[in-house]
Amino acid sequence: MQIHETVNSERYLTLRARLDNGLRKRLTHSSPSLEKLYNAMAYGVFEPGKCLRPILAYSACEAMGGPLDAADGVACAVELMHAYSLIHDDLPALDDALVRRGKPALHVAYGESTALIAGDALQALAFESLAQPSTVSVGIRLQMVAVMARAVGPAGLAGGQFLDITLAGARPTPEQIAEMQRLKTGALIEASVVMGAMASGANVETSHFVALRKYAEQIGRAFQVRDDILDVVADPVALGKAVHADQPADKSTAVSSLGLEGARHYAWQLLQGALTALEAFGPEADALRQLAHVVVERDL
Amino acid sequence: MQIHETVNSERYLTLRARLDNGLRKRLTHSSPSLEKLYNAMAYGVFEPGKCLRPILAYSACEAMGGPLDAADGVACAVELMHAYSLIHDDLPALDDALVRRGKPALHVAYGESTALIAGDALQALAFESLAQPSTVSVGIRLQMVAVMARAVGPAGLAGGQFLDITLAGARPTPEQIAEMQRLKTGALIEASVVMGAMASGANVETSHFVALRKYAEQIGRAFQVRDDILDVVADPVALGKAVHADQPADKSTAVSSLGLEGARHYAWQLLQGALTALEAFGPEADALRQLAHVVVERDL
Repeated sequence: MQIHETVNSERYLTLRARLDNGLRKRLTHSSPSLEKLYNAMAYGVFEPGKCLRPILAYSACEAMGGPLDAADGVACAVELMHAYSLIHDDLPALDDALVRRGKPALHVAYGESTALIAGDALQALAFESLAQPSTVSVGIRLQMVAVMARAVGPAGLAGGQFLDITLAGARPTPEQIAEMQRLKTGALIEASVVMGAMASGANVETSHFVALRKYAEQIGRAFQVRDDILDVVADPVALGKAVHADQPADKSTAVSSLGLEGARHYAWQLLQGALTALEAFGPEADALRQLAHVVVERDL
Repeated sequence: MQIHETVNSERYLTLRARLDNGLRKRLTHSSPSLEKLYNAMAYGVFEPGKCLRPILAYSACEAMGGPLDAADGVACAVELMHAYSLIHDDLPALDDALVRRGKPALHVAYGESTALIAGDALQALAFESLAQPSTVSVGIRLQMVAVMARAVGPAGLAGGQFLDITLAGARPTPEQIAEMQRLKTGALIEASVVMGAMASGANVETSHFVALRKYAEQIGRAFQVRDDILDVVADPVALGKAVHADQPADKSTAVSSLGLEGARHYAWQLLQGALTALEAFGPEADALRQLAHVVVERDL
């Protein structure tokens, strides 16, 4: 199953078009001398990604009764940030991955130094995307910056990348794997949902908001578990990256810890937890429900 | 001449103490599993740096009549950002520098993968430092995030690092060198002054503010020119990094373009420009005037 097969196709295409439009604007420049850098950034950002995080942000904004355009800044920011994290993760110093999304990894296509700098630039651009003028209030945009900074800093995504290299070959405990995955993948997925909901302008303290945080936490974990499963069972051509990529470096995964069936069962539990968290919502949260299924059932 | 010899010593020590206190707070954590990452970040951030950028931020805030504590968030943010840029710049993929500030470069001391991640984490922490609660209004803090993001993104510091590697060995024109230096070094120095002034709460449109931007532009350029001069003439032990470090890779510098005497004269012109920009200020801008001298006359 792929994301556009589960989420209403027309809706998905509309959101993708909004997102691509926003990303293109943010990657526009007028300096011939920086052409290659911007091309490298665009190479890392566009297609054929799933764009799960921005779709989550848009859907969370709608679930809280907000208009789509309020979530444009968040949607672009989370995709830019995600692209940066993949680019740096693929570098020789970390995963040394040659293929990403079915194409040569950025450092293979553009060279290691350009890839390093493109990742750095994308992180800055993601923060700029949150701060840019929009219909969202100044106060909420500043809060988003704080949420994003925590989600990707040493106690978030960067910390998760660090734990990932630290735990490699160290026979990690299930708790250590869970912490690594919560930081490396969960934090930005959660932030996507939380910032999307914040963009709606709804009060951060409401019970609906708490429910969305819970939902986000569950699917963040489920996403990583599904990744670990796919890394063992998937077709490498469809997946667009090397299968068993995590095994040679003896890295820690949910499958290595729980076994394949155990990991599948855990993913199913997380899906149930995500759906339960949304119980108080009506049809306005249907897109989020569908996305939870996508996360657990996707083939890519 | 060193920074504490020129700027009033007591004042310098007071500002350094404020800064170190703020940085220490921002690098505090409670996760044993992330201990090494935070240690690596602290290694890159603390001592024996000049801390020019935070001192500029504090001094610009004071020149605009603001209290010191208003500039704490900016001061920490620019130093964290500067530390990240040095760490990534030293990586094998870029300058491949083994020594920084008289110590082994971070990737030498902690390994390349940890250095890469520590730099990424410091960039995020810098943005968090701007967004954190403070006496500065929400609106100004959000503007600071936008200023910082532009200063370090593809049209700022990251773009400058890209031009630096692109121009290496390419017999660049003086205009190309100037563009590279404006982005790589000037943009963050300018942002330090601009954000420090913004922290004062003063109106961004006043003529004083325009003057500070002009001042910042001049010393940003002067700083890089002085760096190029020091790279040719300085004592490597005092400098704390390899002298002629920029020559083996055939990199572009003001000295290679203008000659040593030409570069010195250019730095002097920039100093005069910086001082002229401050003409409408009284003694409240004396610290900024002293800092302009430090930038051009420093030995480190």
